[in-house]
Amino acid sequence: MFTLGNFLTLSTFGESHGEAYGGIINNFPAGLEINFEEIQKQLDRRKPGQSSIVTQRKESDTVKFLSGIFDGKSTGTPIGFIVPNENQKSKDYDHISQYYRPSHADFTYDKKFGIRDYRGGGKSSARETLNWVIAGSLAKQLLPKGIKINAYVSSVGDIFCEKPYQDLDFSKIESNDVRCPDMETAEKMISRIKEIKKEGNTIGGTITCVLQNVPIGIGEPVFGKLQAELAKGMMNINAAKGFEYGSGFCGAKMTGAEHNDIFNEDGSTKTNLSGGIQGGISNGMDIYFRVAFKPIATLLRPQDSIDKEGNKVIVEGKGRHDPCVLPRAVPIVENLAAYILADLFLINKLRQL
Amino acid sequence: MFTLGNFLTLSTFGESHGEAYGGIINNFPAGLEINFEEIQKQLDRRKPGQSSIVTQRKESDTVKFLSGIFDGKSTGTPIGFIVPNENQKSKDYDHISQYYRPSHADFTYDKKFGIRDYRGGGKSSARETLNWVIAGSLAKQLLPKGIKINAYVSSVGDIFCEKPYQDLDFSKIESNDVRCPDMETAEKMISRIKEIKKEGNTIGGTITCVLQNVPIGIGEPVFGKLQAELAKGMMNINAAKGFEYGSGFCGAKMTGAEHNDIFNEDGSTKTNLSGGIQGGISNGMDIYFRVAFKPIATLLRPQDSIDKEGNKVIVEGKGRHDPCVLPRAVPIVENLAAYILADLFLINKLRQL
Amino acid sequence: MFTLGNFLTLSTFGESHGEAYGGIINNFPAGLEINFEEIQKQLDRRKPGQSSIVTQRKESDTVKFLSGIFDGKSTGTPIGFIVPNENQKSKDYDHISQYYRPSHADFTYDKKFGIRDYRGGGKSSARETLNWVIAGSLAKQLLPKGIKINAYVSSVGDIFCEKPYQDLDFSKIESNDVRCPDMETAEKMISRIKEIKKEGNTIGGTITCVLQNVPIGIGEPVFGKLQAELAKGMMNINAAKGFEYGSGFCGAKMTGAEHNDIFNEDGSTKTNLSGGIQGGISNGMDIYFRVAFKPIATLLRPQDSIDKEGNKVIVEGKGRHDPCVLPRAVPIVENLAAYILADLFLINKLRQL
Amino acid sequence: MFTLGNFLTLSTFGESHGEAYGGIINNFPAGLEINFEEIQKQLDRRKPGQSSIVTQRKESDTVKFLSGIFDGKSTGTPIGFIVPNENQKSKDYDHISQYYRPSHADFTYDKKFGIRDYRGGGKSSARETLNWVIAGSLAKQLLPKGIKINAYVSSVGDIFCEKPYQDLDFSKIESNDVRCPDMETAEKMISRIKEIKKEGNTIGGTITCVLQNVPIGIGEPVFGKLQAELAKGMMNINAAKGFEYGSGFCGAKMTGAEHNDIFNEDGSTKTNLSGGIQGGISNGMDIYFRVAFKPIATLLRPQDSIDKEGNKVIVEGKGRHDPCVLPRAVPIVENLAAYILADLFLINKLRQL
Repeated sequence: MFTLGNFLTLSTFGESHGEAYGGIINNFPAGLEINFEEIQKQLDRRKPGQSSIVTQRKESDTVKFLSGIFDGKSTGTPIGFIVPNENQKSKDYDHISQYYRPSHADFTYDKKFGIRDYRGGGKSSARETLNWVIAGSLAKQLLPKGIKINAYVSSVGDIFCEKPYQDLDFSKIESNDVRCPDMETAEKMISRIKEIKKEGNTIGGTITCVLQNVPIGIGEPVFGKLQAELAKGMMNINAAKGFEYGSGFCGAKMTGAEHNDIFNEDGSTKTNLSGGIQGGISNGMDIYFRVAFKPIATLLRPQDSIDKEGNKVIVEGKGRHDPCVLPRAVPIVENLAAYILADLFLINKLRQL
Repeated sequence: MFTLGNFLTLSTFGESHGEAYGGIINNFPAGLEINFEEIQKQLDRRKPGQSSIVTQRKESDTVKFLSGIFDGKSTGTPIGFIVPNENQKSKDYDHISQYYRPSHADFTYDKKFGIRDYRGGGKSSARETLNWVIAGSLAKQLLPKGIKINAYVSSVGDIFCEKPYQDLDFSKIESNDVRCPDMETAEKMISRIKEIKKEGNTIGGTITCVLQNVPIGIGEPVFGKLQAELAKGMMNINAAKGFEYGSGFCGAKMTGAEHNDIFNEDGSTKTNLSGGIQGGISNGMDIYFRVAFKPIATLLRPQDSIDKEGNKVIVEGKGRHDPCVLPRAVPIVENLAAYILADLFLINKLRQL
Repeated sequence: MFTLGNFLTLSTFGESHGEAYGGIINNFPAGLEINFEEIQKQLDRRKPGQSSIVTQRKESDTVKFLSGIFDGKSTGTPIGFIVPNENQKSKDYDHISQYYRPSHADFTYDKKFGIRDYRGGGKSSARETLNWVIAGSLAKQLLPKGIKINAYVSSVGDIFCEKPYQDLDFSKIESNDVRCPDMETAEKMISRIKEIKKEGNTIGGTITCVLQNVPIGIGEPVFGKLQAELAKGMMNINAAKGFEYGSGFCGAKMTGAEHNDIFNEDGSTKTNLSGGIQGGISNGMDIYFRVAFKPIATLLRPQDSIDKEGNKVIVEGKGRHDPCVLPRAVPIVENLAAYILADLFLINKLRQL
Repeated sequence: MFTLGNFLTLSTFGESHGEAYGGIINNFPAGLEINFEEIQKQLDRRKPGQSSIVTQRKESDTVKFLSGIFDGKSTGTPIGFIVPNENQKSKDYDHISQYYRPSHADFTYDKKFGIRDYRGGGKSSARETLNWVIAGSLAKQLLPKGIKINAYVSSVGDIFCEKPYQDLDFSKIESNDVRCPDMETAEKMISRIKEIKKEGNTIGGTITCVLQNVPIGIGEPVFGKLQAELAKGMMNINAAKGFEYGSGFCGAKMTGAEHNDIFNEDGSTKTNLSGGIQGGISNGMDIYFRVAFKPIATLLRPQDSIDKEGNKVIVEGKGRHDPCVLPRAVPIVENLAAYILADLFLINKLRQL
């Protein structure tokens, strides 16, 4: 209950200004040589302070594995890990202990639990996602080597990467600060984010993720469809407002004659509006989906709000905040997708006698 | 694993041309007077043959409760139910036992399981959703009386209901065959579906669902966010291609200054781009979301395809099929949303000492 | 939650005088040719009316599979089954609707749920175990052919089968009504049960179960130890009061020097006080355990009791009841053990890359 | 899967000579003032080195809470904790990296996982139980104040505490090193353990646990019976070989007329052979159960064994080991019982509307 994954389960803990984040992965198979550098590399892609268009907080975000690995290999027993928190400036949050920030979780946490760790958003902070990056990066190492999972920023505000993913060179994703592989669009996005930042404002956008060379058969018929598991995972990311795969919302405007993917003789399909999934199960074609992110709620300028007693107050973000969540969300989407895939991949191994 | 709900769990079974569908609901509280008529009414909204724009199959779809209810009241023990199948014309499907229909699950089931009940799509049939309507309608009866859950068809192909949900009269949803409460738009949608049907073609669309008077506090912080549970549920519906809530994909184009919902003094918000959820938890405002459905894959006209050996074949839908899934999906979305809400509603009762 | 099994999950429903019992098995692998006769045979071993020392109720207890099986083979999708109830004499129970029978669940169900189906014990009836026999018999068919699971009555009251299991011929278990393979002891047990029955009394006893040729590696390190899963399963059987495996309670009197099982060079052990399990994981030796059953609470003679208001009443069992649960519990223990083993067997397949 | 608890779930990690032990508790209600001293006190009861009859290892076993608690109160979000390992003498175990110790988990871990952290038994070490003591002690704080949970050593080898629990003064449990409240018996037990220790041998025994003032209604009808959950928990403790509750194995020798507990007019019962549970649900009477523990397998004297290749070797325990697990198992049993009770207590709150 409230873990990520069905068989390969991840439990997590941690608050923004608590002692540490961390998690436990259960049912990870034994005998895998762990690539620790790769995990740290993925964490580094998510961490604050990496470029001028993200928050300038400095945290080393170093993962420490505490169990389940011996002599560099997984032992088949629970893998525990932590990431100690550093450099919290809890003072920056004293002023909000009695305030509710607009479009934040302050109000709902207080009402639900009657208590809340308000420092840095506490449990509602997106810092939780570093647990998912660690677990996802580890889980990815379980998957067949050929599988490729690439996410990129496909829009920032009204600036869209118009090219279909097939025309993009994924090796360029890391070559710019915004993580859009179309260099021209990337530049526009970066300018837009810088403008927005200057205004103390924030901006939304979308991420597209493509999973290639996924074996046929991943996903479960009912209540475990691959797209549903992906949707659930992605919609748990802070600020996510929408999910679509394959033809998505565009597909809703089409007719069956336009939308059906006709087979080639080898079982592949001529088109791929289905997005690589039929009946909840991967069909061997590329899986692709898109996630919408709203603009971050913390603005570095004054906004009207209320305090716990319902009195009017003015709130203004202090501290170090992202003007746009998208660049740092790319590794989150990618590694989360890897985790979900690995979970269903293991389960699928038991589907035939 | 692979149930609906986290505490209030639903396990289901059934194939399109098997003996029966059915399910078991666990952890349903004792002492609820069950409104059986309401459950059957919801099932009737989903059943085939109810109008000229849906499939003309005739099935009574009558639910029979087998346990967990005594003297008309829930006993707190597992509720078992079945819906016997009737009127299957399995012969209609003999021709596809060796074929793979385009954009159907025939191919993926065969590859995944090495065996498939091909009659009527077997397990991949959307007939499974009658289980969800039953369970959802039952679960809804657990919820506080004031909660209102209304879904309606908000687009068919490129015909959109342009009015925001606030301007619609939900009591009109059932007044026309397509289940769009805007009568003018409904007429256009119906005409469009009739045209499409005549061509042996099919068409997609979207459903909007609105949950009103939901108490504050429903939804769990991590891996149990209300929007994620809704997304998972909805994306498990056959033909669903996308999910968005609140501002959704539009929100991804906005800035924080535009998107933030400013509080009133009573804790409600002036705008509701958040869609009634903050940090995964309901905030007392209307919850609204939209689901995209692709056009149904079965066309009543010839299409190129392949058989199990990869030989080219021509397939043509026989039997009785829907030209548009939308009208019958309305009660599915509504009752599924009710189920998910009831599950998280029960869990929330344990959130404070 | 509240299913049997961790990966291969069984949900069940049913009350003694309800419409039917039944269950759903999830995650059963595809492609298994089902031996239906074997399943019915196991059910028949459990059913009432089979001999003079068990209840004389007549129920055919015929299982009907509703899904998950096609052309005689499992399809990998949920397997639903039901057993319709017949021959209930609910009138026999009218007198207890307001009474609490001694050492029955009448009192606790009323207090817990505020409502109870009192007919035949409702949900608390041991008739629920027929679901487990069906699921267990099916699950056993997943296991490697060489595995042998035999349970037998090892004591009735103070009559004990003194021979160790190694000296017994399991093929004789079915040769007498009490299901003890030692024919001499069996006769004594049968005489004792007949005496007890004449008195309107009941009697307890123990069942020993032996699992042979179980592969090494079944069971999980923490919170999934093989003995713990067996204990949980067995202690869910109505009337079970104790569980021990290997040396059990006797082992608690021993020293390490006496108790340790010394290895042979092939990894087998010279003794087997461990009972075939080390650290929660099968070691390839025989697994054996013993379950204690209290005497059935329903006596066919008057007993003092109270009604719902706390007034003194006299209760006397009417209807048809077992004087001794042991003979019918043998197939329950055996098939339940098979189910638990099959669940952990599947999970173990994923333990190494 | 493989957590402790059904709603209040505990995931754990840790190996004997790894970096740390730890766990995550999910669904712990908000607003509880945590008594940290009490938790550490329970840990101290379990820790090594506390008396001359237990292992002389010195570890501070200090728990550190990392999340889910703010200003001394639970916040309703996941509670993460760790206990760093100290004072490991891994060198003591070098000699067993290639050996299989008799009646240890070395052999089964190697066969199951193909890899094993052999230092101090790795994952199979009973050191894991410190996680359960922490979680159990925390969970106990959720329960109504009046509930009393007391465990004590009721036998060591063939020395039995003959008095029924009703005649014992539980306040004396902590007054002697073996944790038997009958002082005379305690002395005999301590002498016996000292003798055994001198011989480099070990000895088994039993623990009795009594839960008093438990509200009526705790436990679930099927697959969640209170005794089954207790049995599962207890049988997961290292070295546990048997579990019985109420009349237990003795009850199997009795007749119904002897065994039935007749009601008083207030719903309590004159006798309590049922052990406070009817139909899996607490009935308000004392709950009592007994757990059998085998003698610890590590002897401080030479034993025949084999290495990984099947060659004969002599093994001899080095390092610091317990001659008898019983005294340190008392807080494990008590706190584990508290955890299981708290989990079912929370669930029971949702049983009636």
